[in-house]
Order: sequence, then C-alpha cells, then structure tokens
Amino acid sequence: MTSTSTTAGTSRRGRPGYDREGLITVCVEAFNRHGYEATSMGALSRELGISKSAIYHHVDSKEEILDIALNRSLAELERVVSEAEALDAPAVEELEIILSESVKVLTTSLPYVTLLLRLRGNSEMEVKALQRRREITLRIAELIRRAQENGDLRSDIDARTASRLAMGTINSIVDWYRPVGGAPDAALAETVKQMVLGGLRAPHPS
Amino acid sequence: MTSTSTTAGTSRRGRPGYDREGLITVCVEAFNRHGYEATSMGALSRELGISKSAIYHHVDSKEEILDIALNRSLAELERVVSEAEALDAPAVEELEIILSESVKVLTTSLPYVTLLLRLRGNSEMEVKALQRRREITLRIAELIRRAQENGDLRSDIDARTASRLAMGTINSIVDWYRPVGGAPDAALAETVKQMVLGGLRAPHPS
Repeated sequence: MTSTSTTAGTSRRGRPGYDREGLITVCVEAFNRHGYEATSMGALSRELGISKSAIYHHVDSKEEILDIALNRSLAELERVVSEAEALDAPAVEELEIILSESVKVLTTSLPYVTLLLRLRGNSEMEVKALQRRREITLRIAELIRRAQENGDLRSDIDARTASRLAMGTINSIVDWYRPVGGAPDAALAETVKQMVLGGLRAPHPS
Repeated sequence: MTSTSTTAGTSRRGRPGYDREGLITVCVEAFNRHGYEATSMGALSRELGISKSAIYHHVDSKEEILDIALNRSLAELERVVSEAEALDAPAVEELEIILSESVKVLTTSLPYVTLLLRLRGNSEMEVKALQRRREITLRIAELIRRAQENGDLRSDIDARTASRLAMGTINSIVDWYRPVGGAPDAALAETVKQMVLGGLRAPHPS
C-alpha cells in the first residue's frame, strides 16, 4: 500500500490524485447522497474525476469499498463496547462510557456510520453488518439488565427495548448532525448520556 | 369515490380487486421494500397483480400515491401535537401526551411513517414533507423550552437538541418494530414516554 499522505482532491501531476483513504471517503459520501445501489462505478468515476481503472488501482470492486466502510464503523463501535466491558466497572458506569463514546464515534465518523445505518440488508455483506449491529445492541441490553439487577436502573423497562431505544436515539443523530471540523462532539455526547441514562435511572431512595 | 369496503387482495370477479385504500397500502409497502425512486409503475403493477390502467383508475401517478401517504402520516402527527397544545395544560403534560400518542401513531401507521422517515428530499414534495417534520420538531422544542422555564424539565439541555433526540428516539422504532394486529402499542408508548421525559425531568427538590 502506498503512503496515505495524499488526500482527496489534491492535485498530482495536474489531475486529481487520491490515496486509498481519500478515495474511500469520496465514495462513501456519494453512496450516502445517492444510495449505495444506485451509485455505479461509472458514477464514482465521475464523482472522483478519475477513470474506472484508476479506481481499480485502489480497490477491486464497489463491494470492497462498502466492506471497508462498514467494517470501519462497526469496528469502532465494537471497540467502544469492548473497552467499556473490559473496565470491570459497575454496569451503569460502563453504559455511561458506551453512550458517550458512541456519540463521539458517530460525530467523528459521520459518513461511515450514516452508510451503516441506512443499510436494509440487500446483500450478504449487508446482512452480516446488520447482524453485527444486533450483537452490539444485545451486549448493551445485557449491561442494562445487569444495571437493573444492581438497582442502578429502573427495572420496569424491558432491557432489550431500552437498548434498542438508546441506540435509536444515538443513531437518529445522523439525520440532522452537521460535524464541526471532525472533532468528537463532547457536549452532544454528554446530552445524549444524560437523556438516555437519566430516563432509565432508578429513583434515588428518599 | 367508490366504497372502501373492498380490501387489498380480496377477489372481485376472479381477479385481485383493490379499492383506493388497499391499493395505496400495497404501494407504500413496495416503496418501503425497494425504495420509492426504484419502484416504477410497472413494478407496482406486478406487485398488485393488476394492469397499469387499473392503477390509473385510482390514482393519477406514483407521485400522487407518495403525496397521499406522506400527507396521511404528517397529518396524524400534526393532529397529535395540535390536540395536546389545545389542552392548555402545563407544557410537560402536553409533552407526555405528544410522546405517547406519537408512538401510537407510529405503531398503527407503521408503513406510512416508515415511508415518511426514509425520505431524503429528492423532490419538491419530499422537501415540503421534511419541512413539515421540522415544524413538528420546533413545536415540541417550544414545549420543552416552556417546561424548562416552569422548572419541570432540566434546563441544562438545549431544547432544540432535546426535541430532535426525543423525535429521533421515537422514529428509530420503525427500524425494528413489528406491529401486532395494527393496534396502538400502549406499553411501548409508555416506555418511550418514561425514557425520554425521565431523562429530561428536573430533579425533585429534596
């Protein structure tokens, strides 16, 4: 693999030059704008301003671009959950970290997460991605269940439903969020954590 | 307009017969499955098992079907907000009603709301629908702001962000909910209300 220092849109010998990273970024944005199915290699070639064969220099197929993009966002979200679980802290504290770190992943990797969330399972690769999303939701449901057992979260809400609604709250951010310079949005992460966990928290014994 | 007693899929003189209502339901489900753009009148004709001219007996165009479907879900959601606002109750109580009634609308009109939420603004009609969604979010933000002023909701969360996250929580339900017999899901409505408003509620003065 060549150096990744050349970024999208910069000129190399008078024509647009892309490293693999820059190329993938532009393609993911095109998928989000027009839909993955509706975006042909020809359309990507026009979008990038380079020939199809120049695209094939970096990737084997449109499917490979999707695969890379989905793997990236899923791996980031799975890492957030794994790191929190490894803390061996009270479940409610691990949940706090997962909620705010997931929002940070979303705000820094918005195009990748957007692509992931818009999938409907139209291919084996998409079905596998949806399955990985479901596993994340189940791991969070398990933490909610443990926090309910500990008395930290209210137990009158089904843990699976609470997990889906919590993830749904986070995921809905892609519909309106406009990133500011690619930095993680710590304020939004805090707001989401407060709203979701505030709503699930058990009343303090008075 | 003819009687609406004939429902989708029932047989009339030995071939599938649809009234306008049944035809629109099948078309909306096809739009959700394959995407609105990707679903041609030919595809709708195959899906319905009737000729294109039989479809044109009920509607003028694919756009008219979309228009009817979007208007229906938007009108229901707007009605929920207007009826709550008209109560002249404390803002937090009006919010409670809006949250749970919106979930009920979503669970009874799932295909219509799903279609609405998947729009990306690809036509003037879709842009107008997105604008109506934004106005609903703003009316809810205004109620949150008033409930914050009253001290019923915590004031350290931006009202506009809270409104977007609350609506996002509700909307995310379309991604996993499977309706049971078309009845409003009162239990889910209660859970969503508890989670969203619980997270926004100001701590009781101790």
